[in-house]
Amino acid sequence: MKILVVNGPNLNKLDLRDKTQYGSITLNDIEKLLIKNFPDINFHFFQTNIEGEIVDILQNADDKFEGILINPAAYSHTSVAIRDALEICKIPKVEVHLSNIANRDDFRKISLTAAKCDGYISGFKELSYVAGVFVLIKLILTN
Amino acid sequence: MKILVVNGPNLNKLDLRDKTQYGSITLNDIEKLLIKNFPDINFHFFQTNIEGEIVDILQNADDKFEGILINPAAYSHTSVAIRDALEICKIPKVEVHLSNIANRDDFRKISLTAAKCDGYISGFKELSYVAGVFVLIKLILTN
Amino acid sequence: MKILVVNGPNLNKLDLRDKTQYGSITLNDIEKLLIKNFPDINFHFFQTNIEGEIVDILQNADDKFEGILINPAAYSHTSVAIRDALEICKIPKVEVHLSNIANRDDFRKISLTAAKCDGYISGFKELSYVAGVFVLIKLILTN
Amino acid sequence: MKILVVNGPNLNKLDLRDKTQYGSITLNDIEKLLIKNFPDINFHFFQTNIEGEIVDILQNADDKFEGILINPAAYSHTSVAIRDALEICKIPKVEVHLSNIANRDDFRKISLTAAKCDGYISGFKELSYVAGVFVLIKLILTN
Amino acid sequence: MKILVVNGPNLNKLDLRDKTQYGSITLNDIEKLLIKNFPDINFHFFQTNIEGEIVDILQNADDKFEGILINPAAYSHTSVAIRDALEICKIPKVEVHLSNIANRDDFRKISLTAAKCDGYISGFKELSYVAGVFVLIKLILTN
Amino acid sequence: MKILVVNGPNLNKLDLRDKTQYGSITLNDIEKLLIKNFPDINFHFFQTNIEGEIVDILQNADDKFEGILINPAAYSHTSVAIRDALEICKIPKVEVHLSNIANRDDFRKISLTAAKCDGYISGFKELSYVAGVFVLIKLILTN
Amino acid sequence: MKILVVNGPNLNKLDLRDKTQYGSITLNDIEKLLIKNFPDINFHFFQTNIEGEIVDILQNADDKFEGILINPAAYSHTSVAIRDALEICKIPKVEVHLSNIANRDDFRKISLTAAKCDGYISGFKELSYVAGVFVLIKLILTN
Amino acid sequence: MKILVVNGPNLNKLDLRDKTQYGSITLNDIEKLLIKNFPDINFHFFQTNIEGEIVDILQNADDKFEGILINPAAYSHTSVAIRDALEICKIPKVEVHLSNIANRDDFRKISLTAAKCDGYISGFKELSYVAGVFVLIKLILTN
Amino acid sequence: MKILVVNGPNLNKLDLRDKTQYGSITLNDIEKLLIKNFPDINFHFFQTNIEGEIVDILQNADDKFEGILINPAAYSHTSVAIRDALEICKIPKVEVHLSNIANRDDFRKISLTAAKCDGYISGFKELSYVAGVFVLIKLILTN
Amino acid sequence: MKILVVNGPNLNKLDLRDKTQYGSITLNDIEKLLIKNFPDINFHFFQTNIEGEIVDILQNADDKFEGILINPAAYSHTSVAIRDALEICKIPKVEVHLSNIANRDDFRKISLTAAKCDGYISGFKELSYVAGVFVLIKLILTN
Amino acid sequence: MKILVVNGPNLNKLDLRDKTQYGSITLNDIEKLLIKNFPDINFHFFQTNIEGEIVDILQNADDKFEGILINPAAYSHTSVAIRDALEICKIPKVEVHLSNIANRDDFRKISLTAAKCDGYISGFKELSYVAGVFVLIKLILTN
Amino acid sequence: MKILVVNGPNLNKLDLRDKTQYGSITLNDIEKLLIKNFPDINFHFFQTNIEGEIVDILQNADDKFEGILINPAAYSHTSVAIRDALEICKIPKVEVHLSNIANRDDFRKISLTAAKCDGYISGFKELSYVAGVFVLIKLILTN
Repeated sequence: MKILVVNGPNLNKLDLRDKTQYGSITLNDIEKLLIKNFPDINFHFFQTNIEGEIVDILQNADDKFEGILINPAAYSHTSVAIRDALEICKIPKVEVHLSNIANRDDFRKISLTAAKCDGYISGFKELSYVAGVFVLIKLILTN
Repeated sequence: MKILVVNGPNLNKLDLRDKTQYGSITLNDIEKLLIKNFPDINFHFFQTNIEGEIVDILQNADDKFEGILINPAAYSHTSVAIRDALEICKIPKVEVHLSNIANRDDFRKISLTAAKCDGYISGFKELSYVAGVFVLIKLILTN
Repeated sequence: MKILVVNGPNLNKLDLRDKTQYGSITLNDIEKLLIKNFPDINFHFFQTNIEGEIVDILQNADDKFEGILINPAAYSHTSVAIRDALEICKIPKVEVHLSNIANRDDFRKISLTAAKCDGYISGFKELSYVAGVFVLIKLILTN
Repeated sequence: MKILVVNGPNLNKLDLRDKTQYGSITLNDIEKLLIKNFPDINFHFFQTNIEGEIVDILQNADDKFEGILINPAAYSHTSVAIRDALEICKIPKVEVHLSNIANRDDFRKISLTAAKCDGYISGFKELSYVAGVFVLIKLILTN
Repeated sequence: MKILVVNGPNLNKLDLRDKTQYGSITLNDIEKLLIKNFPDINFHFFQTNIEGEIVDILQNADDKFEGILINPAAYSHTSVAIRDALEICKIPKVEVHLSNIANRDDFRKISLTAAKCDGYISGFKELSYVAGVFVLIKLILTN
Repeated sequence: MKILVVNGPNLNKLDLRDKTQYGSITLNDIEKLLIKNFPDINFHFFQTNIEGEIVDILQNADDKFEGILINPAAYSHTSVAIRDALEICKIPKVEVHLSNIANRDDFRKISLTAAKCDGYISGFKELSYVAGVFVLIKLILTN
Repeated sequence: MKILVVNGPNLNKLDLRDKTQYGSITLNDIEKLLIKNFPDINFHFFQTNIEGEIVDILQNADDKFEGILINPAAYSHTSVAIRDALEICKIPKVEVHLSNIANRDDFRKISLTAAKCDGYISGFKELSYVAGVFVLIKLILTN
Repeated sequence: MKILVVNGPNLNKLDLRDKTQYGSITLNDIEKLLIKNFPDINFHFFQTNIEGEIVDILQNADDKFEGILINPAAYSHTSVAIRDALEICKIPKVEVHLSNIANRDDFRKISLTAAKCDGYISGFKELSYVAGVFVLIKLILTN
Repeated sequence: MKILVVNGPNLNKLDLRDKTQYGSITLNDIEKLLIKNFPDINFHFFQTNIEGEIVDILQNADDKFEGILINPAAYSHTSVAIRDALEICKIPKVEVHLSNIANRDDFRKISLTAAKCDGYISGFKELSYVAGVFVLIKLILTN
Repeated sequence: MKILVVNGPNLNKLDLRDKTQYGSITLNDIEKLLIKNFPDINFHFFQTNIEGEIVDILQNADDKFEGILINPAAYSHTSVAIRDALEICKIPKVEVHLSNIANRDDFRKISLTAAKCDGYISGFKELSYVAGVFVLIKLILTN
Repeated sequence: MKILVVNGPNLNKLDLRDKTQYGSITLNDIEKLLIKNFPDINFHFFQTNIEGEIVDILQNADDKFEGILINPAAYSHTSVAIRDALEICKIPKVEVHLSNIANRDDFRKISLTAAKCDGYISGFKELSYVAGVFVLIKLILTN
Repeated sequence: MKILVVNGPNLNKLDLRDKTQYGSITLNDIEKLLIKNFPDINFHFFQTNIEGEIVDILQNADDKFEGILINPAAYSHTSVAIRDALEICKIPKVEVHLSNIANRDDFRKISLTAAKCDGYISGFKELSYVAGVFVLIKLILTN
């Protein structure tokens, strides 16, 4: 089972961000955590700070992967382009957030992109990713 | 490990609601699903249509349980009282939604109550509950 | 023909409320008026000040009644829970208001609950109820 | 008893409009339905697509009629002029809508004109008219 | 000196409107008052309830008159069409209101049409018209 | 092929309006331009300043014409009545604007009526009409 | 002199709430404080987390008490039902808040219920209650 | 007849302001113009840039004057204090503006203070003052 | 114990204001009432209509007084400057209002300045002042 | 004549998008359609999902092309950067949309970028492009 | 070179304000800092808490000074009067803020007054003043 | 001392933009101006039109530079991603704008990114950059 994991802007610098919101491990740690928890899954990890590159990889995901785990980070709240790209993907899609967006700035309370995923998980720090893959596998199996 | 599962208004009538949004199994089925997936957990299931009764049970949860799984349903979007009650609870709290609230009516897009949980999971139908317990157990263990 | 008549908060105290808005007869008078006007109907009258109890009775209405007349009063403007409960009911539903909500405070101008009834009648004081039953019977007969 | 029935824009073309919202009979059918249901009433039916002509006829209604049944249609939501004209009329006034305006586009949720009628009835398709006359007669008799 | 006096919807029924807002004389009385106060002026009085007819007469005013006194009444707050027609007129234009629109419903507080007149006068009941002509004559003389 | 061309308020006075927005030719020039560019088309030109008369002609367009080109002008931004009338028409419909409404006052940025046409063309002055007919013919041929 | 003291949701758990906002004593302590400060008053203390039960007790207060002290807590900001119930009560009514609602979340800045009391006192922690009774007694004496 | 003329901030510097909006004469010129046009009136001219000093003079106007002409300038749009002071004055009050506030920045479109005058005149540059006194005298005579 | 009592604009003219809102006694009466109720307190009474003078006196209050009672009147709703000045004061501060601001115009519903006092009391007419001093003394004693 | 055709995010995947909105042909088909309809035009086709790359190519368009046809897709509604880049271009510019943006989600109703083109065409699916080039050629010829 | 330095409300009490926002030196220290950094400049320092006195001094600045450095403090966000006064001044004007207004309460995010200066500098504490004079000198020299 | 200078979209084309807003020199001229004014500083100039590339360079700035001067241009008003990247940087950060954003379109009035810099400077054209470096050096020296 091949799963695409997309991480948006500034997630490659978790060690420098507010630990109260984002937890205290790096993106690399998160990737290792996923591999350790789900050793049978073939993960493809992708991180970029460029909105359009997220669109690029999503557009081709259907052919290469069986599911998508995405944390669009800041672009969750502003990107109609990623929203439209997610709508194109027909495989199961799970959005995750490290922080609890319901408890942050008003401009972070709503996710434009989550609306075009199967659902989203927000606030459990690295556990959001683990739970995201947990759900995604089940969605793929029943797809 | 004792977990309180709180379900808000109209969740006792899932069989009559829009299956596109809420999935096709009953609340009783969901309870059985949780027990089957987590046989070691001692679940206490509680459902009510009355806002204040949710406040009542939450206020006493810290002493009796080690974690809370809550789906406040319609009250997620209107209840400051439940929000305040959740703030009182110090044990881990996970909010779940069957439907993807980011993709519904504007008045359902924001959850007032999720802001006072550790995080929330929305959109995976009954899987939201399973993933919710999955996360909750990990939160309890590291609490 | 069995009809459920649900009255929300403060309607049990009509005698104490603003007569310009609510007219000058009591809820008991309204009930008598309905019985007098529609002697062949088997009315079940229910009044409560508790939002969740309105949800409770609506959830079970389909099995016991052939139509619902409801005045959610203050809850019309704030209750997503009653709205969701009404959506569950498949029998004909008519919402009534004693006062003309289009001519009151801004926060009373829109009814969240009326959206999930067949329609609503507002402003004719006790006549709203009489007309409501008049319509409801016709809806039931053509249901 | 003479009653003026005013119908606003596009109601003369009901056969071409969305049947889910407006029902499946023509304006002419509605007129016949009223005559059949209330054979003792002397109805004057008036339809126009021009806002100002509705103002014209309302201004002179007090002298010629004992009550007004009005469906301002699209103008309900935009016309301060018809609102002002209705305020001038001292005879009983009932506004009716075929569709349930509480369940449509946001710009149709509030009726500016209903605020200056005794009340309004919305959502019962042609039954809104029948119930409207039913109420109007009672209002006239107790005026 | 020829002056066009345009009166919008419901001003032909001043005797029936709220005297607190509109004063206690009729439109005919206002016309006589203007003639009496300004005996040398050649007034052309025009009243209509139809928005488009106000547009019609304004479009041709430049050729026939030296100034315009207009009370668009309800259309002041809703008509982009009359606003555009006023913009076409190059002769002096004065808008008047009987009532003080700064002290009424929110939807009457701003006049879309006044923005395309030289200025406006509001709140002095019939004196608004007298002052309007008083100003208009001076504007024409210095045009 | 018979095409109805509807022009709304103040378009009959283009020579007097702001040339930066509306270009420098008259409505008559535009009509001639259309005839010259599309000599095989049987155009029916209609202009009115009255909202309801636009509703009138649209209601009967299906029987007499194969397509509609409409510039509702000021009414684009305020008329629910014309919007409803357009919805009734089943033949192809193209809305055109001389000025670029995306670059004008906020209250002109959205067209209520365009939503019920196949599409709209805005900003090319008289070329908007030519392009409008160009598209309309293709829509009719593939209808 | 008999005074009803109504406390809304979560006030029974003051010991667990944010001490910066709510002070550091329990509801029981507050009750004792009132009794100590006003030994001649016959207090009836009532606390509930259920909105409708507050409505219930208020509806019957006029007959049993001479004044009402109420802290609707979270319901202050959302309950039209309690607002309507307060409007029914004719005896003096004082609303109190432990925290200073003018200095909290936007959704707590306005109290819907205070509008239907004689006035309100906010921000002095337990002193709000003491001052509330102080004022209430004077209001009762001059009622 | 004694009339108080109050001018608010920056009106003492008309020669330096935008002539398109404010005309091309000084405040001193305006005062002379009033004296010349109304030689029988005993004017008291007062200008200040301080909001509270406008409140001061208005509070004592009833005893010393028979009418007030006021241009609160920038304070028209922000001062609740002057609004309250105007409400206290029982003598006739006319607000004037040199510029047409209906055609300026959004934050200048509504006058808080005009709501508590008999009415207001806006847009005729110095003629606004002349017309203001013209109306004020008539109001005083019929007061 | 020295207490500063600050009264804002128009409170020096209570005898002329709306008695329904402000009660029926003068500011001088209120001052006498405070002295009579609290004979041991050394009051310093200050009233001004000028916003900046309130800022002036507040800035120096810490050194001269042990507590502040302030009614900023109209400036409560508009003055960031007084809000900032209050934030500077470290002694106990109580805001009072004669009228119930929760039940007045929307622009009076929120007090910017109350947010920087310990709390506020609104709606009890002159009793607001008495209760204010009652609380203030207790705050000072426990400061 | 050289024309630049810019297509924004997700237009390279038209075959996967909602056919009701976007039509049923691919971007490649659209390009062929343009070449076939305008064989004398030298088109340069450019598509990217990256906002800044659209800015890049627009910045250099003046030197290389005589006109621009652009469909910024999702970026139409969010990109101030592309808006600024379009403002820099002095050659004729036409914006096109496959879907009718006046009839979609609220956040798609206004185009920030269209404001800086000569005009825009929306809703005719691939015909929007054909009509866009049709207009663009005429604009270039009269530039 | 003579420069006017205007400081608004509460800046004379910097030592008592939030050091995180305003830095840790007094206004007097800031003045000394400016003199030390710019020994050749003839500074005129002016501070007041009264809005109208800022208007007063600005109105006469053109004749006496060659440039203005202004920190309107709280009045930046509310004063149309100071905005209008600044518009009158033709000499270079620089607004400065100690705190970063882009990162504070919403009601402090926009400066009405900065719009009528050449520009503004915000967030560098006392360095904002130094940089302000640095820029102002250059503006004066190139004026 | 090494300083990173980041310029956002369209700043590489200053010669083509509105000179009233942006001044009349090129970005290259600005760079030369900085070098000339601060010959001892080691500047690294970077310009891109791609949002994500600004994020990229900011993420690595802490290790390579001692301070950041940034003009995010259009992205100032829309980019949460750049805001988050700036928050990561711990070295001094100064945002500059050529134009005065307080005096432009509403959507340019607030800078999301400035909130996460030490402060910002807006409106002095190329002088904004010079003053920005002037402040930045002082911030670095006291960092």
